[in-house]
Amino acid sequence: MTILEQTIAAIRPADPAALAEARAHQDSLTKPRGALGVLEEVAVRLAGAAAVSPPPLPAPAALAIFAADHGVHAQGVSPWPQEVTLQMVGNFLAGGAVANAFAAQVGASVTVVDVGVAADLAPAPGLRVGKVAHGTADLSRGPAMTAEQAVAALETGIEVARDLVEQGARCLITGDMGIANTTASAALICAFTGQDAAVVTGRGTGVDDETLARKVEVVRRALRVNGLRPDAGESHPGTDASGRGTVPEAGTAVPTPGEDGLPEAGTALPALSALETLAAVGGLEHAAIAGFILGGAALRVPVILDGVIAGSAALAAAALAPAAVDHCVAGHRSAEPGHAVALGHLGLRPLMELELRLGEGTGGLLAHPLVCAAVRVMHEVATFDSAGVTDKEA
Amino acid sequence: MTILEQTIAAIRPADPAALAEARAHQDSLTKPRGALGVLEEVAVRLAGAAAVSPPPLPAPAALAIFAADHGVHAQGVSPWPQEVTLQMVGNFLAGGAVANAFAAQVGASVTVVDVGVAADLAPAPGLRVGKVAHGTADLSRGPAMTAEQAVAALETGIEVARDLVEQGARCLITGDMGIANTTASAALICAFTGQDAAVVTGRGTGVDDETLARKVEVVRRALRVNGLRPDAGESHPGTDASGRGTVPEAGTAVPTPGEDGLPEAGTALPALSALETLAAVGGLEHAAIAGFILGGAALRVPVILDGVIAGSAALAAAALAPAAVDHCVAGHRSAEPGHAVALGHLGLRPLMELELRLGEGTGGLLAHPLVCAAVRVMHEVATFDSAGVTDKEA
Repeated sequence: MTILEQTIAAIRPADPAALAEARAHQDSLTKPRGALGVLEEVAVRLAGAAAVSPPPLPAPAALAIFAADHGVHAQGVSPWPQEVTLQMVGNFLAGGAVANAFAAQVGASVTVVDVGVAADLAPAPGLRVGKVAHGTADLSRGPAMTAEQAVAALETGIEVARDLVEQGARCLITGDMGIANTTASAALICAFTGQDAAVVTGRGTGVDDETLARKVEVVRRALRVNGLRPDAGESHPGTDASGRGTVPEAGTAVPTPGEDGLPEAGTALPALSALETLAAVGGLEHAAIAGFILGGAALRVPVILDGVIAGSAALAAAALAPAAVDHCVAGHRSAEPGHAVALGHLGLRPLMELELRLGEGTGGLLAHPLVCAAVRVMHEVATFDSAGVTDKEA
Repeated sequence: MTILEQTIAAIRPADPAALAEARAHQDSLTKPRGALGVLEEVAVRLAGAAAVSPPPLPAPAALAIFAADHGVHAQGVSPWPQEVTLQMVGNFLAGGAVANAFAAQVGASVTVVDVGVAADLAPAPGLRVGKVAHGTADLSRGPAMTAEQAVAALETGIEVARDLVEQGARCLITGDMGIANTTASAALICAFTGQDAAVVTGRGTGVDDETLARKVEVVRRALRVNGLRPDAGESHPGTDASGRGTVPEAGTAVPTPGEDGLPEAGTALPALSALETLAAVGGLEHAAIAGFILGGAALRVPVILDGVIAGSAALAAAALAPAAVDHCVAGHRSAEPGHAVALGHLGLRPLMELELRLGEGTGGLLAHPLVCAAVRVMHEVATFDSAGVTDKEA
C-alpha cells in the first residue's frame, strides 16, 4: 500500500464509548449542565477522536503553513502579484507575519512547507521542502494537477503531520500561503458540495466587484472544463428533476475522460474520484493540507482547521476518508462565503467568527487556547460530589 | 472627593491621536488591509484607551470573581439553593471550578472577593474580604441596596482593580458568583436600556418555563416597585407618544421619593441617578464589578467583560462615567438574551459567541489570548517595507 492508502486505512471514526463517557463526565462537573455551550461539544468530540475520556490535552500545538502557487493567477483573480507567495514565505521564516505573532501568543511551533512555490527557495531554518511542482497549472483551462502530483502533495502533508507528532505535537493546526488560492478553494467547494460558484466565491484578500465577477466566471469555467459541473450556474441542486446536470456528490465526481493530465477515471473507487476532483481544481497546498488532516486523523491527533483553504481541503480529506472529520475542529469561520458552505457540509461548527480573511493558520492558532480550555475542564474541574457543591439535579 | 468621585474624575475617553496612529499602523503591516477583522478593531481600541500606539501588551491578566447573594432568591427565580454561592467560593479557592481551569490555560491570576455572600467566610489564600452586607434585600419588594451600600461595593471594586494593577496586572477580567444574579442583571438592563423584561430575562443557569415566567414577573415588579418603570410590560420605548411612562434613559432614572433605604433623589447629578438605579435593582457584585471597570478605566488598564452580569454592571459604570466604555472589551456574548441588549447599548461587539452561560469570568478569560494576539500584531508583525513584501495598494 502507498502511504496515502495506509493512512486512509488507519483512520477510525469517533469512539462511541468515549463519547458517552465524556458526556457523562461533563454532567458531573461543578457547573450547570451545558453551561459551557460549544466548548462541551469540543471536549466530547476530542474524547471520541482520541477514544479515551478525558482526552489528552491537545498541547503543544504545531502549525504547518503549506505554501504554493497557482496557475489560475494568470486569469487576474487576485490583486496581489504571484511573487507575494515567495515573499511571505520569507516573512514567515523571519518571524514577521501575523501567523508568527499568533503562534508566539499561543505557544505553537511554526513549520513552513514549500509544496509548490513557483520559485526555488534557499534552505532556511523552519523551512521544509516538499515541492511537488512550481505551482499548479491553470485550473480554468484543464486540471490543475495530475493525479500523481495530487498524491505527492497529499503524502507530503501526511509526512509533515507524522513528523510533527513524532516531535511531540499533540495538536496540529493547518496553515496556507498561496496567492490566488481562494479561487481553487471556491472550485473545490462547488465540486464537493454542489453549491453554486456565485454563492461560494468571495473577495479573498480583497478583490473589487469586477474582479469578483471574473473570479466567479473562472470558477464556473474550471468546473465545466474539468467535467465537474457541466452546466454550473444554470442549475441548482434539487432544481433539476431530470437529474441531468445535477451536481456531483462528494466523492462521485468523474472528470471527462481524456482530460489532459488525468488518468483513466477510476469510477469503482470513490477515493480515486475524490482524488481526481482535488487534482482537477485544487491547489498543491490544498492537497497537502488534506494529507495533513488525514495524517493527524490516522494518529488520533486533533487537527484545528483554519479558514476557507482548510475547509475546502477538509472536504477533499472527508471524501477520501469520511471518518477524518471526527478528528477535526473548525477554528473559526472566515469572511469568505464558501467557508460556511464547506463547514456546513462537513457538519463542523466554527468556534469563532472574527471576520478574519488572512489565512496562514491565523484563525486556527487563535482557536487553540479555546480547545485546550475545553479539554482542561475535563481534567481539572471538580465534580459536585468532590467539591461538596449542591447539584440542583441531584 | 470620595474614592468613587476621584476615580470617575480620572477616566479619560479614547485618545483620538492614538486611534488614528493605530489605524495607520495596521494598514502598513504585511497583511491585506482589514484582514484581521474584529481583532484590528480591538487593537485600535486598546491604543485609544492607552493613549499610545501600539498599546502595551495586555498581560499578565488578573481575574477578580466578585461573589454575593441576592434577597430576590426568595422569589424562586433560580433552581439552585442560595448556599451554592458559598460552596462555589470554596470551589474557586480550592482551584476546582471552570474559572480556575480557564485561568490556568491563559495564565491569569484569580482573586475571589466576598462583597456580599450571605455567610461569614473563613480567611483563605486568594480570598479578599470586602463584604458590604450579607446579601442584598429583595429587589422585587424595594431597593436591593442603600446608596451607601452601592457606593461601598463600587469602591471595593475600584480598590481591587487598583491593587491588582499595582501588583502588575495589565489587563483586568471581570468575574462573578451569585445565585440569582441574572435576575438583578435583567432588571439593571431593563432600567438602563429601556428594553422590556420579557426580552431581557433569560434562563440563567437553567430555569424551566414556569420559573422563567415568574422571573420575568419579578423583574417587572422590581422595576415598578423601585419607580424605575412604572408601567413595565405595558409600554415599549417609543410607543407612548405622550411620553408618560416611557423608559428612563441611562442615568436619568429617579426612584419614587420616599422609597425605603434610598436617599433623596439627587436629580441634579446624573451620576447619582445612575447610582440609585444600581442600588435599587443591582446586586453587590454588580456594583463591585461596575467599580472594577471604573478602576481599570481610571488607570487606563483594559477590562475584559465576561457575560451578562458584567454587561449589566458595565451599563451602570457607563452611566456613572461614559468614557469608561472606551476601556472595555466584550469578551463574549453569553446565551442570556439580555447580554446582547446590554452590549448593543454599550456599543461593544463581543469577540466570541460560544453559548456560555456560566459566569465566573469564564468567557472573559477565554477572550484574553485573542486580545493579546490582536495587540501583539501591532508590536511584532513586519511592515510591507521592512519585510520586502509587495503591497498591492502601494
